[in-house]
Amino acid sequence: MLDRAQGRWRLDEPMVEALEIGSGILGTGGGGNPYIGKLRVRQALREGHVMEIIPLESVPDEARIVAMGGIGAPLVSHERIKEGREGLRCVRALEERLGIKVDAIACEEIGGQNSMEPLIAAAMAGLPVVDCDGMGRAFPELQMVTPTIWGIGATPMAIADDKGNSAVLNTISNHWTETFARSLTVDMGASALIALFPMTGKQVKEATIPGTLSLIQRIGSAIRESHEAHTDPVEAVCEATGGFAIWEGKVGDVARRTVGGFARGTASIQGVGDYEGRTLEIDFQNEFLIARDGDDVLVSTPDLITVLDAETGEPITTESLRYGFRVAVLGIPSDHRWRSEKGLELVGPEYFGYDFAFSPVESRMG
Amino acid sequence: MLDRAQGRWRLDEPMVEALEIGSGILGTGGGGNPYIGKLRVRQALREGHVMEIIPLESVPDEARIVAMGGIGAPLVSHERIKEGREGLRCVRALEERLGIKVDAIACEEIGGQNSMEPLIAAAMAGLPVVDCDGMGRAFPELQMVTPTIWGIGATPMAIADDKGNSAVLNTISNHWTETFARSLTVDMGASALIALFPMTGKQVKEATIPGTLSLIQRIGSAIRESHEAHTDPVEAVCEATGGFAIWEGKVGDVARRTVGGFARGTASIQGVGDYEGRTLEIDFQNEFLIARDGDDVLVSTPDLITVLDAETGEPITTESLRYGFRVAVLGIPSDHRWRSEKGLELVGPEYFGYDFAFSPVESRMG
Repeated sequence: MLDRAQGRWRLDEPMVEALEIGSGILGTGGGGNPYIGKLRVRQALREGHVMEIIPLESVPDEARIVAMGGIGAPLVSHERIKEGREGLRCVRALEERLGIKVDAIACEEIGGQNSMEPLIAAAMAGLPVVDCDGMGRAFPELQMVTPTIWGIGATPMAIADDKGNSAVLNTISNHWTETFARSLTVDMGASALIALFPMTGKQVKEATIPGTLSLIQRIGSAIRESHEAHTDPVEAVCEATGGFAIWEGKVGDVARRTVGGFARGTASIQGVGDYEGRTLEIDFQNEFLIARDGDDVLVSTPDLITVLDAETGEPITTESLRYGFRVAVLGIPSDHRWRSEKGLELVGPEYFGYDFAFSPVESRMG
Repeated sequence: MLDRAQGRWRLDEPMVEALEIGSGILGTGGGGNPYIGKLRVRQALREGHVMEIIPLESVPDEARIVAMGGIGAPLVSHERIKEGREGLRCVRALEERLGIKVDAIACEEIGGQNSMEPLIAAAMAGLPVVDCDGMGRAFPELQMVTPTIWGIGATPMAIADDKGNSAVLNTISNHWTETFARSLTVDMGASALIALFPMTGKQVKEATIPGTLSLIQRIGSAIRESHEAHTDPVEAVCEATGGFAIWEGKVGDVARRTVGGFARGTASIQGVGDYEGRTLEIDFQNEFLIARDGDDVLVSTPDLITVLDAETGEPITTESLRYGFRVAVLGIPSDHRWRSEKGLELVGPEYFGYDFAFSPVESRMG
C-alpha cells in the first residue's frame, strides 16, 4: 500500500551512532537507554534486517499504522536482556485483534531506546517506520502523546514480555490504558514492549510530530561534526535543537528509587563558573521534569531538560548520572502542540503534582 | 450444537434460594458473597432471562466451552455494584479472540457468587451452563482448577470491569495468568469478571468435576428441608456433603485485611460444649485454608472448611464473620482430583506457605 520510493531512507551503522546521541538528547534523561538501543539495532542490521524510514507526508490516508515503544523503568531495561521478538509479537497480536495487516510502524516516543525499538520490530515484520513520533521527546506515561490531544484511543494495545506472555487491552480512556499497562509491566519485570494507538495514515499525519527520526539523526550528526571540528559540542546541540544552556556544574547527590515501574528521584548539580555557589535541582520520573535553582524554576515539563557531558556534549540518562560528572544542562522548547491547553493538561507541571504554571524556556532565557 | 433436550433443567426462583445456601457451603468462606449472587440471578430471572443447566455427559466432544467467574476480594464485590454485562463482554471478547462461537459456559468455581455469575452471563448470551466446575469448592487463585492438573491453559482469558475496560491475556502458564489478572483486578477496583480456560467438550468432560451445580442445589434443599422438619441443619449439611462437624463455638477475634486483591486474615472460634476452653484458629485467603486447635491441624486445604450458623446451618462467608456469632465448623472431604500429587502441588498446604503435609479430614475424624 505504501509507495516507498519517495524520500525514504535506510538506516546504516554510522547513522545508528548518530541516532544513539540524538535520541539521548531528546530523551531528556529517559526513553530507555540509547546505548542499549544502539547495540540492539546494530545487531539486527548485522543479522541482515533492513530498516527503512519513510516521510510522514508520503503515508496514504487509508494506511494502517501502529505506534510502538518500550515501557518500564529505564534502569531495569538496562540490566534485563530482551528476548528479541517482543515487539514483533505485539504487532502480530494487534493485527490479529484488529483483523488487519499493518502497513507501517510509528515511534510512540522519539527519545532514547524508544526511537530504536520500533525500527527493530518493523524490520522483523518487513515494515517501514514513519518519520514522526507522538512526543517529540520522551515522557514517562503512555497517554502522554499528541494523538491523545486529538482524541485518538491508545487501545486496542498489545503488550509483550521476554518470556512469551502478552496481553491486549481495551480501555475507555488512555489514562486507564496507562494504569493497566503499568501494572502488567511491573509483573513482567518492569520492562516490556507495547504496540498501541492503531491509526489511519490520515490520523498519523494530523496527530503526530513530523520529522523527528530525521531530527535526532541531524542532532547526532551535529555533535559528531563538532567533535571533528573541535568546536563546542554543547553549542552544537543548542543550535541543532533550538535549546538554551541553562547551567554548568558537577553532579552532587542523586536520589533515586524504582517505584511502580518508574525510576523516580532528584539530582543536584553544584554550579561551576557562572553558577558557582548555587545548586540546580532536577526532579525526574523516568524523564527530567523540572529544573530549579532554589525557588526559581528554570525549565519545566513539557519543555525538555537535557543533561550533557560538558566535554563531549553527549547526553546522560537519569540512570547513568553519577556523583562528580561535569555536566551542562540544556532547556529545549517543546513542540507547540504540548503548549496548548490540552497539551498542558496532559503533561504540564500541574499534572505531575507541581503547583506552578508552565512558562516557556525561551521566555525565561530571552 | 448442543442437544439441550436430555437431562437439562431450568433455574427458577425457589431453586435460586437453594443455590445461595449450597454455594455458600462449598464456598468455604469465599467464592464471592452468595447473597449478592442470589439477588443478581433473581433480578436476571425477573427480567425474563432463561438459565438452563445441562448435564456434563450431554456435552458433545467438539463443543466449545469457556469457564467463567468473578475475581477479586469478596468484601469489595459485596460493596461495589456490578454494571451487569461484565460477563457478557468477557464471553464476546473471547469469541472475537478465538474466532469461534461459544456453545456453553462452565463455572470456574462452584463456591459462592461464582456459581451464579456464569448463569447470568450465559443467560445474556443465550447459552446453557454445564453442570460441572473446576474446583468443587472455591479457591483463591485462578490457576487452582482441575483443568490445570490436566495441563489445559487458562488463556486466552478475558477480564472486564464495570466501567467498560477489558483485556485479553495470553500467558505461558496459568500462574502467570493469575499474576496478570490479579494486578488488573486491583486496578479495576478489586472486583471484575473473567472468562477463561477455553476448552472442547472433550476436555471439559475429562478435566472438570461433574454435577456440582446439581450438588449445591441438593445441599441447599437439604438444609431447607431440615428447617421444615425441625431436624438439625448441621447434620443435614454433613449428610449432603459427606462432611464432619469438627467444632462448635463462638466467633472471637477476626483479623482481616485486603492485600493484593485478596481478603486475608485469621478468625478465632472459642469452643463451647465439647470444645469448651479451647480455641480454633482458621486462616483464610478469600477462602478458609487451615483450621487448627493449637498445633493440631484439624482440616487443611484442599479439604473444605465451612463455617455455619449453629442455629440455621446456613454458611457464613469470611467477610460476614463477626464477634459473638454462634457457629459450627465442618470439614468436608475435597474431590479426589485435589488429593493427587499434582492436585496437592497446586492447592495443598505447602503451596500456601504452611510447613505440614495434607492429611484427609476423614482420616483425622475416623
